[in-house]
Amino acid sequence: MKKKILLGILCNVLLLLLFFKVQGQQQLVVDEPAPGVKKISIGKLDQFTPYGFCEEAPMKAAMKQLPDAELPFDLNDIRISITDRGVLVEVPLSDTEQLYGFGLQIGSFNQRGLRKKPIVNDNPLNDVGYTHAPMPFYVSNKGYGILINTARYTTFYCGTTEKLNSKQKTISQDKNGTSVAELYKNDEKTSGNVAIDIPGAAGIEVYIFEGPELVNVLQRYNLFSGGGALPAMWGLGVKYRVKADFSQQQVAKMASYFRTNKIPVDVLGLEPKWQTAAYSCSYVWNKELFPSPDLLIDSMRSHGFHINLWEHAFVSPKSPLYEPLKTKAGDYLVWNGLVPDFADPAASKIFGDYHKETFIKKGISGFKMDECDNSNLTRGNSTWSFPEHSRFPSGINGEQMHQIFGIVYQKAIYKIYKELNIRTFLDVRASNAFASSYPAALYSDTYNHDEYIRMIVNSGFSGLIWSPEVRESNSVNDLMRRSQTAVLSAQTLYNSWYLQNPPWLQINREKNNRNELMPDAGQVEANVRTLLNFRMSLVPYLYNAFADYRFKGIPPFRALVVDYPQDKNTYNISDEYLIGQGILAAPLTEKADERKVYLPAGVWYNFNTNEKYEGGKEYTVKTSTTELPIFIKVGTILPLAKPVEYIAPDTRFQITCMVYGANAVNTTLFEDDGTSFNYQKGAFNTVNLSYSKNKGSVKREGNFKQSRYQVIGWKVIL
Amino acid sequence: MKKKILLGILCNVLLLLLFFKVQGQQQLVVDEPAPGVKKISIGKLDQFTPYGFCEEAPMKAAMKQLPDAELPFDLNDIRISITDRGVLVEVPLSDTEQLYGFGLQIGSFNQRGLRKKPIVNDNPLNDVGYTHAPMPFYVSNKGYGILINTARYTTFYCGTTEKLNSKQKTISQDKNGTSVAELYKNDEKTSGNVAIDIPGAAGIEVYIFEGPELVNVLQRYNLFSGGGALPAMWGLGVKYRVKADFSQQQVAKMASYFRTNKIPVDVLGLEPKWQTAAYSCSYVWNKELFPSPDLLIDSMRSHGFHINLWEHAFVSPKSPLYEPLKTKAGDYLVWNGLVPDFADPAASKIFGDYHKETFIKKGISGFKMDECDNSNLTRGNSTWSFPEHSRFPSGINGEQMHQIFGIVYQKAIYKIYKELNIRTFLDVRASNAFASSYPAALYSDTYNHDEYIRMIVNSGFSGLIWSPEVRESNSVNDLMRRSQTAVLSAQTLYNSWYLQNPPWLQINREKNNRNELMPDAGQVEANVRTLLNFRMSLVPYLYNAFADYRFKGIPPFRALVVDYPQDKNTYNISDEYLIGQGILAAPLTEKADERKVYLPAGVWYNFNTNEKYEGGKEYTVKTSTTELPIFIKVGTILPLAKPVEYIAPDTRFQITCMVYGANAVNTTLFEDDGTSFNYQKGAFNTVNLSYSKNKGSVKREGNFKQSRYQVIGWKVIL
Repeated sequence: MKKKILLGILCNVLLLLLFFKVQGQQQLVVDEPAPGVKKISIGKLDQFTPYGFCEEAPMKAAMKQLPDAELPFDLNDIRISITDRGVLVEVPLSDTEQLYGFGLQIGSFNQRGLRKKPIVNDNPLNDVGYTHAPMPFYVSNKGYGILINTARYTTFYCGTTEKLNSKQKTISQDKNGTSVAELYKNDEKTSGNVAIDIPGAAGIEVYIFEGPELVNVLQRYNLFSGGGALPAMWGLGVKYRVKADFSQQQVAKMASYFRTNKIPVDVLGLEPKWQTAAYSCSYVWNKELFPSPDLLIDSMRSHGFHINLWEHAFVSPKSPLYEPLKTKAGDYLVWNGLVPDFADPAASKIFGDYHKETFIKKGISGFKMDECDNSNLTRGNSTWSFPEHSRFPSGINGEQMHQIFGIVYQKAIYKIYKELNIRTFLDVRASNAFASSYPAALYSDTYNHDEYIRMIVNSGFSGLIWSPEVRESNSVNDLMRRSQTAVLSAQTLYNSWYLQNPPWLQINREKNNRNELMPDAGQVEANVRTLLNFRMSLVPYLYNAFADYRFKGIPPFRALVVDYPQDKNTYNISDEYLIGQGILAAPLTEKADERKVYLPAGVWYNFNTNEKYEGGKEYTVKTSTTELPIFIKVGTILPLAKPVEYIAPDTRFQITCMVYGANAVNTTLFEDDGTSFNYQKGAFNTVNLSYSKNKGSVKREGNFKQSRYQVIGWKVIL
Repeated sequence: MKKKILLGILCNVLLLLLFFKVQGQQQLVVDEPAPGVKKISIGKLDQFTPYGFCEEAPMKAAMKQLPDAELPFDLNDIRISITDRGVLVEVPLSDTEQLYGFGLQIGSFNQRGLRKKPIVNDNPLNDVGYTHAPMPFYVSNKGYGILINTARYTTFYCGTTEKLNSKQKTISQDKNGTSVAELYKNDEKTSGNVAIDIPGAAGIEVYIFEGPELVNVLQRYNLFSGGGALPAMWGLGVKYRVKADFSQQQVAKMASYFRTNKIPVDVLGLEPKWQTAAYSCSYVWNKELFPSPDLLIDSMRSHGFHINLWEHAFVSPKSPLYEPLKTKAGDYLVWNGLVPDFADPAASKIFGDYHKETFIKKGISGFKMDECDNSNLTRGNSTWSFPEHSRFPSGINGEQMHQIFGIVYQKAIYKIYKELNIRTFLDVRASNAFASSYPAALYSDTYNHDEYIRMIVNSGFSGLIWSPEVRESNSVNDLMRRSQTAVLSAQTLYNSWYLQNPPWLQINREKNNRNELMPDAGQVEANVRTLLNFRMSLVPYLYNAFADYRFKGIPPFRALVVDYPQDKNTYNISDEYLIGQGILAAPLTEKADERKVYLPAGVWYNFNTNEKYEGGKEYTVKTSTTELPIFIKVGTILPLAKPVEYIAPDTRFQITCMVYGANAVNTTLFEDDGTSFNYQKGAFNTVNLSYSKNKGSVKREGNFKQSRYQVIGWKVIL
């Protein structure tokens, strides 16, 4: 009998323990899931987090190669409190450090002193943090990164708050002036921490990415996420999206225009009307406009074109996917269409498998995955997406689903390409953390050229690929400057979904659609061709930069501060960036034909004039619209290919190596088929280019049998 | 022994019950706290809610006078679910009804089809719902109002969402056009409910205000909140805020200018520099600029001026309030100042008592309570307020405190005036629900004239008083049009905090401060004087409208749809409004000298020309800048006073009664001392004005001994 009483008491104790455990488990666990990556866990973790959707294994071997790092603070100095509101994380912040990141931020660059709420949305909204690809991840020039593994709407106060009873600080001067500026000037000393507010959470995982240098932080983040993306090689060519109501015949005619006029194009994108229903989507060919899609795909392929299809993930009642997904969808409709529960692998598989059989196996080489960015969140009249309180069968709610919708959508599609051993280059309107391995370029409708440049610069902090697309323009000059930026970005895209003719034949939308071409259309076309040919010349170099992204995690496009974290002059430069190891780009907009360019330490060459500049200074540089606003670092061997009109599996690039300076450092090219994942099984070469004693040499290492690069000349610039 | 076992089992069961109770108590309670007000409660209620801060008792007797109502839906059709995300409330919405409210909305009027997140903020932010005075309260033209009693950030989807498996609806036409407009046109049928998302909540109170008519809904809401505000009578005169760096002498000089030039002004407002520290505040006179504040107050009072002081609630370390409030403040500082925990009555009392002794007893007749609206929430660079995760000793958190900060700040100050039996008219930058009894006018920096007009119209849906202040202007025309709007609003305010001279002497800010007056300054001054004299003529009428607000809950300023809820033409009119019972205002902006005016059913008179209009139609009406764009309803007896320069306790208004139409309805005036709360003890008169058989009559009922209105004439307009 006594045993039974004891049992009763034991039951009570167990129940109590269970009770308190559920109420808020406060035990802090520190882990090192990969070299130089620490993880702090506390409390009851969410079921759905960005990392929870990452299936790629960390590339630990590559991470081990990185130099050892030491954090500038003790891990114990990160304070985490769980309250009835949610979780508060406080991370130390020293007086001099600079912060970057939070995903594809549009309006701001250096985030120190700002409050950021990185939420998926198509609209910058006064720069509070909303963007297509937000990320609960920031990096410091002191050599570390902090990632809050949450799909909840989270706010980061980056040194904007001061606590009562915090260590005494000098009282700032009184502000009671009479001018607005005088009264409201923010001369407060910002606080010694970043405060991160995660309402609703009952626990949290914090990932700390170590350096030692800022670039190493980004490498570790990308490698931890499975490495950077390596798009199909043709993806680095030019993509052109045709008018939404083009028929099969019109698409073919447009393709013929490109080839006849020797305008390089690798991908033709079809817009909404290829489907029988678009808002929401049927994912069924509209046979009135496209009577024989298979024929189109094949004939286009034979002319070197890949076909990319626009779609979004909201499934029309007219779609064959509707019935199978009806029980695997959210409880709210969008445009009368289902919202598939991509948090459930079964729903993703149904969606993916349909795409596999219907499109990918038939030769569709990519998709433009639109409308996954909670459009209209920032407009009052919002029927463009599902509400935040939506419920999905998997258990995820609308808020969390919004934050990860871009990722799970990419995953559903990309998985199929991987299964079929076909590489791709996708377009997507939303993304988030741990997605660096997805070869998907983000795009936007915001269309401000300055912002588009800044987004290239910011993309490198967060493992993102950004495509500053060109549409219509204010002026020919605007068109050319935008084209230059497109050429100097990860994806060169002309989006003519509402333009009858290419924008270079008529910049004005209405006239363009009335077929009234500009009087100087021929000249503008020639000038754009010049720029696009530059792009094609750069492909081998870019492809190698992406290989460095893939294997080493180095962002192919990145801010100057990434490579020069000690140079104060770089801290706020958001209109220049590095491409690969040897190029600095400083794009211009229509505002002026010259601009100030800051060049960091070292010697730099003007790509157009070969003029030499001493680094560590700012120069005013003029660049015409048919040149490229780039500067080459001394020691670079820049491989420039003879432009091709498209990149086929058998394309062999004829390369001239530009050697900048007397002591050129070895350069490599990455050589593989460019279209399959066989490189992951070793089917690739590293082509070493070196130059010394007035002689260039090419050394090929690896198991790939085909030679895709033929060096036809060397040119030394001293 | 068996008993002990049973006891053990019982303990287990009790523990389990406790466990489930804590996890989410789901019992729904329906209550009727006042006539025609239903309350649904479910789950674990928040400690801090807007109604929790309302100390005024519902005016049940007045509510009982209202006609009985029936809701257009069954209370059981309101669905409330408590999930791990928070609370979701779903309220039925019929196909034809129109929704209004959510507080002082800036960008929108008819809220049907919109998503609104009413959050305290100084910036409209793409019209997502942010405003100085947000409110979790909407009303329907079908005659009911829904108030979610929460201080949490809450989102209302006003028929913007459609549920999967909801009753079958016709599939809307496919949208896959080629123009943006065609593709994105929102032609979906909106859903049959309003969905209200309250993240973080574990329970909720929903108040349902019945009609039967829309105006009765508003009456019930205002009466339930303690009745509408009745400002001190002088508050209905003109307020002028002087330049922030004016000295005592300069204030006196400005006062002398007004009296010399016979420009009516009742209140002079002092701006930041009257204090020794302003950001944060010391609440201590700056003796360099104001060597003898008591003298100033008394001498100004002797010339008929009241003094109003600018301040905000963030307490400087230099303030005598700092030490007493240090342990009663939030854990974050703003501008190095304390954030008093006004959710704790003890903190409010310390703050209020200091104001009582230091200012109010000395004759300061009001305050401008600035910066309580979470400024910069919508800007990235945000150090202007406390973070949302702030903690306060009372237990309230930053998010909740932001939502109610304006209310509790008003309450702390207004309480003192009530204690001292002194009426006031305050200025405040933020408010929320159940605050209709506070005589505090909201103001803003947004300064868009169209929006300022819309805010007058919206204020009536939520028991708010809005002051469309005039500052500098684009043109003299702009100044005059803005002045007209100010005259036709609850508070006529010129805010010259950065202007050396009144804006009517120089509209351009820089020139104004260089004392370069406009060549026609004299004429503009005369024109403004004309308008301000109109204002003074209107004071008895306005004061009566405010008495109707106080005792019957009828908003003195309200949208046309409030009085004409069946007239479809009124559903989207946000640039016209009713003032009291007989005036319709249709303000103009600088854009044109004429505008379209819709007049509802009945006959209306142009106030300026006496032209008659048949209602139910739209007219194009011209109004000069020195007239008032108002229309008088047939049957109105409009009492117009001979303008006075200020309103003193012994002011006796000389009134001419304008009788519109042959069958004028009786009109009343409210008569009391205008400065104390004695009216609450019956010390007031109702002055009945009537006109029949070519004869006007004045009948006075009540216990107030003084006669403040003398009817000197009758004028009939047929």
